[in-house]
Amino acid sequence: MASTDKPAAESGEPVVLTKSEVPPSGPPPRAADCFAVDVALRFLLFASTLAAVLVMVTAKQTKSVTVPGFPTPGPVPAKFNHSPALIYFVVALSVACLYSLITLVLSLSAILKPVYSTLFVFHFALLDVIILGLVASATGTAGGVAYIGLKGNSHVRWNKVCNVYDKFCQHIGSSVAISLFASVVLVLLVLLSIYSLRRRIPC
Amino acid sequence: MASTDKPAAESGEPVVLTKSEVPPSGPPPRAADCFAVDVALRFLLFASTLAAVLVMVTAKQTKSVTVPGFPTPGPVPAKFNHSPALIYFVVALSVACLYSLITLVLSLSAILKPVYSTLFVFHFALLDVIILGLVASATGTAGGVAYIGLKGNSHVRWNKVCNVYDKFCQHIGSSVAISLFASVVLVLLVLLSIYSLRRRIPC
Repeated sequence: MASTDKPAAESGEPVVLTKSEVPPSGPPPRAADCFAVDVALRFLLFASTLAAVLVMVTAKQTKSVTVPGFPTPGPVPAKFNHSPALIYFVVALSVACLYSLITLVLSLSAILKPVYSTLFVFHFALLDVIILGLVASATGTAGGVAYIGLKGNSHVRWNKVCNVYDKFCQHIGSSVAISLFASVVLVLLVLLSIYSLRRRIPC
Repeated sequence: MASTDKPAAESGEPVVLTKSEVPPSGPPPRAADCFAVDVALRFLLFASTLAAVLVMVTAKQTKSVTVPGFPTPGPVPAKFNHSPALIYFVVALSVACLYSLITLVLSLSAILKPVYSTLFVFHFALLDVIILGLVASATGTAGGVAYIGLKGNSHVRWNKVCNVYDKFCQHIGSSVAISLFASVVLVLLVLLSIYSLRRRIPC
């Protein structure tokens, strides 16, 4: 015994190898809790992205406005698809909504069959980061355009439109706010993945 | 048990200490390579965010434009600070630039003193995600406003300005493109952190 311990004490390497093997097979302490939080956040993400898309798509308002070249005011509609920024917003949030639905189902299946959980957590984390970039940029794009609609810009003579299309702007503002919430949920999902990877909890 | 204690008694306590001390400093297979990639990406992030800020801040152009109410054309300047969206862009990218510089120094110190590496990788990953959200949203905001400047929007009668302020718009477009590149670098940084946490390489 003493003879086998001496080289280990001198070099230190062989003992370390066996110790490093232990953690992977070891302790998933709160894997179920962790996946429950994951499922809750994914449900929030699904609900918020769906709400953001629906609120944006239903943003329609028609007002009687004097158009240059016409003597009398005529009905002029305002729709989200009049702005490429808002179209990008709807497409990006729709992708995020579909993604959240798929990962919600997969995350639920990981609770039922924990065999898949370690596989899912890594791929979820990778995809969550990309979807976060997409949703954050879409929120910024729509928010930037909505701000011009609300305040205008006198330097380039872009007039504000929210004094006329009040309900339309309320929809846009609400949708951007919900999308901001979805971005925060995505940040929390990535942080949860990073935390679980660090703690080696497969969730 | 007594036999294993004997060598400890011979050399004085350190057997237990060395066993517990070895894993952190011991087995990282490609930790140095991994941190080298981290440093390279952080340098790219620093360079790109700095370039984006500089290109945006130097976006100034004065043109002779007819202003309503004045009979003759007068010089009208275009600056980034005429738009709240572009101000937000500069602030967000400046924060990202400062952050990248700090983490670049810390990442370099982790190569020199690997003791800190396991601590850094977790906190870097958390902060990288938040900075990614910031940079992506700023890119979207500036991109959305730049697109209106380039194409205009006939529905709300926002005229395009890039046909007049060509150099100004070139600066804005370049800055947004560089910022998009910085967003991709940030995504890669987060993916590297997730990968290293999964593979348990402290980088």
